[in-house]
Amino acid sequence: MTPAQLSDLFALVRKNRPLVHHITNYVTVNDCANITICAGGAPIMADAIEEVAEMTGIVGALVLNIGTLNKIQIESMLAAGRKANEQKIPIILDPVGAGATRFRTDTARRLLDELEITILKGNAGEIGVLAGADGKVRGVDSAGLTGDPVAIAKAFASCAGITVVVSGAADIVTDGKRVLLVENGHPMMGSISGTGCMAASVTGAFAAESKDMVQAAAAALAAFGIAGERAAAGARGPYSFKVALFDELAGLKPAALLSAAKIRSI
Amino acid sequence: MTPAQLSDLFALVRKNRPLVHHITNYVTVNDCANITICAGGAPIMADAIEEVAEMTGIVGALVLNIGTLNKIQIESMLAAGRKANEQKIPIILDPVGAGATRFRTDTARRLLDELEITILKGNAGEIGVLAGADGKVRGVDSAGLTGDPVAIAKAFASCAGITVVVSGAADIVTDGKRVLLVENGHPMMGSISGTGCMAASVTGAFAAESKDMVQAAAAALAAFGIAGERAAAGARGPYSFKVALFDELAGLKPAALLSAAKIRSI
Amino acid sequence: MTPAQLSDLFALVRKNRPLVHHITNYVTVNDCANITICAGGAPIMADAIEEVAEMTGIVGALVLNIGTLNKIQIESMLAAGRKANEQKIPIILDPVGAGATRFRTDTARRLLDELEITILKGNAGEIGVLAGADGKVRGVDSAGLTGDPVAIAKAFASCAGITVVVSGAADIVTDGKRVLLVENGHPMMGSISGTGCMAASVTGAFAAESKDMVQAAAAALAAFGIAGERAAAGARGPYSFKVALFDELAGLKPAALLSAAKIRSI
Repeated sequence: MTPAQLSDLFALVRKNRPLVHHITNYVTVNDCANITICAGGAPIMADAIEEVAEMTGIVGALVLNIGTLNKIQIESMLAAGRKANEQKIPIILDPVGAGATRFRTDTARRLLDELEITILKGNAGEIGVLAGADGKVRGVDSAGLTGDPVAIAKAFASCAGITVVVSGAADIVTDGKRVLLVENGHPMMGSISGTGCMAASVTGAFAAESKDMVQAAAAALAAFGIAGERAAAGARGPYSFKVALFDELAGLKPAALLSAAKIRSI
Repeated sequence: MTPAQLSDLFALVRKNRPLVHHITNYVTVNDCANITICAGGAPIMADAIEEVAEMTGIVGALVLNIGTLNKIQIESMLAAGRKANEQKIPIILDPVGAGATRFRTDTARRLLDELEITILKGNAGEIGVLAGADGKVRGVDSAGLTGDPVAIAKAFASCAGITVVVSGAADIVTDGKRVLLVENGHPMMGSISGTGCMAASVTGAFAAESKDMVQAAAAALAAFGIAGERAAAGARGPYSFKVALFDELAGLKPAALLSAAKIRSI
Repeated sequence: MTPAQLSDLFALVRKNRPLVHHITNYVTVNDCANITICAGGAPIMADAIEEVAEMTGIVGALVLNIGTLNKIQIESMLAAGRKANEQKIPIILDPVGAGATRFRTDTARRLLDELEITILKGNAGEIGVLAGADGKVRGVDSAGLTGDPVAIAKAFASCAGITVVVSGAADIVTDGKRVLLVENGHPMMGSISGTGCMAASVTGAFAAESKDMVQAAAAALAAFGIAGERAAAGARGPYSFKVALFDELAGLKPAALLSAAKIRSI
């Protein structure tokens, strides 16, 4: 996977404007909609059981996020997910708060069991919980896991047959064979609510235009991280950083991935 | 309808601060609340069946938006709508995504059938679908309609006895007799999520203070569009544009409609 | 209560990063999450009956806000509230729109009856309604109450055994014995949606780290108000004010309370 491939993928997203269907939380949903547009995609939010499968049928990717999970949403996630699987549409699962409550842990596991999830993206604690590696979660934040996150992510990806993304100072992206570290980003991304959710949305837009999920996730995280780095430069605080994050991603040229992406294989 | 009438109406909104009851989606609801305030109104969001009719009873306008439609919400929209009809309170319907799924199309039609909608505001695709003119919708975005949008909007308004607004580079406003084009606005308004929803909120605030729905819609769209033009001037990207859009509408003087509104009768 | 105590409490919030569990409305929920982070806390939003009690079990404070109340939410509020009471975790109740509809008034009363609320924070109209002092509410805004707000708040706090906060140009904080006026803040805080909700979130973060609820509420309101004063200085309108409000609170040093807090005992 060369820098040119990443840049070409980003250019394809911008050109094709893939629809990204979200079933997500009501906290960061507006941020997810706007960041999808800034990345080059077109967001759709729809969660009623009456329409989710039909909506999934017309999109390029499905993003499932359990940030404000409820019982009704689970049925919609399963219905949309089954449709996505039928139509070979990638599903990105963000298991927000898995490990914080049994309801979230069980639901994330159920979605992983009953659907063919394409990319599972969480923080170290959440992935640790789902991988059975004694992950620790404090509310919806990671408090780490027991063991080597790279080894755990790799083994889990291999066993589950999915691509796993562990967000952090360096994001880990692995399908169980290849392991990439994406070292773009900025600590200010942790000073606002929703950057994790947004990363999943951007990943959805890239996954819609790629057949290589490791490539899609790495390119998406690099693009989002570069925007974060640039946004931090002039920010006076977390919310002016947030404003700049959207502006910078929207203004980011695909070719920027050639020079600014910090992705290495390990 | 003279520029002075538009400006007077805007001044009246600012003076009376009409309550605008929204039953709307959870994606752009915060934007709708803030833009209502910036326009001069006071937003209320309430969707529980236990209170919607009572809430509608105290407001100046009701905005129904199906952007994240669910079954429970439909009953609340009908109950609030019936109360609005009883009390001669204008209802603005934004049929977000009509045409994208059967659930949205059917619900928009049901609301048009069972309630006396005052203003129907959608993009060309949505209006095309509802008018039976082979509208095309891509997710929640318009992909056009078959035929002349002005003729279709005019015929539909006439047949349904409502005011129809077709949003676009030039917004069409018609009650079936008069047809106005509002040519304010800026392409950056399409670079963020929610400007369509916000336009409906601003229209609600203006409709609350007018007896002429064509005038109310045109004045609202002109004011919102002028704010967009001014916001675009200094924006570094979509989110700084969004910040400026609210600032500019809040700072817009009613008299600005005298010189800056681009409304023409066709 | 000395300025040094307020400053020390703020420093403690920043150090311990208390989890604040919100069951709140979908209009301002993103603002509540971000302002909690800016104050120094960590927000959790969760409202499903399957998990609310478990979530409350791990947090420092619980914020209940009825801004978009529905029937299902009430059960979750009661379940979370009972857990908070069992574990002696402070509950902040924001009775948004009590007085506007019977559903909101009755629910606010029910929460006050069935739970041991720690801090009740509302505008004069809402508090007037709940205190039986003929409060007037216009949508979700106060239209005043009959009588002296300080006397009414004091009597209600004493009778109900809670701390009462009446938001306004000067915020009233009382537990029925002590009465404090917090005179920080800026009129621009009324030009955006959600500052009331945000004030409750900040209060939750401070209450999590204090045993003195009058102190916690006064320190929180002073910190939030100072941020508002500073944000207003450079704002070009309501939304750039909003951006600056978050930035200023995040950048506020605890020691700023020593010099800038305007709190007086009456």
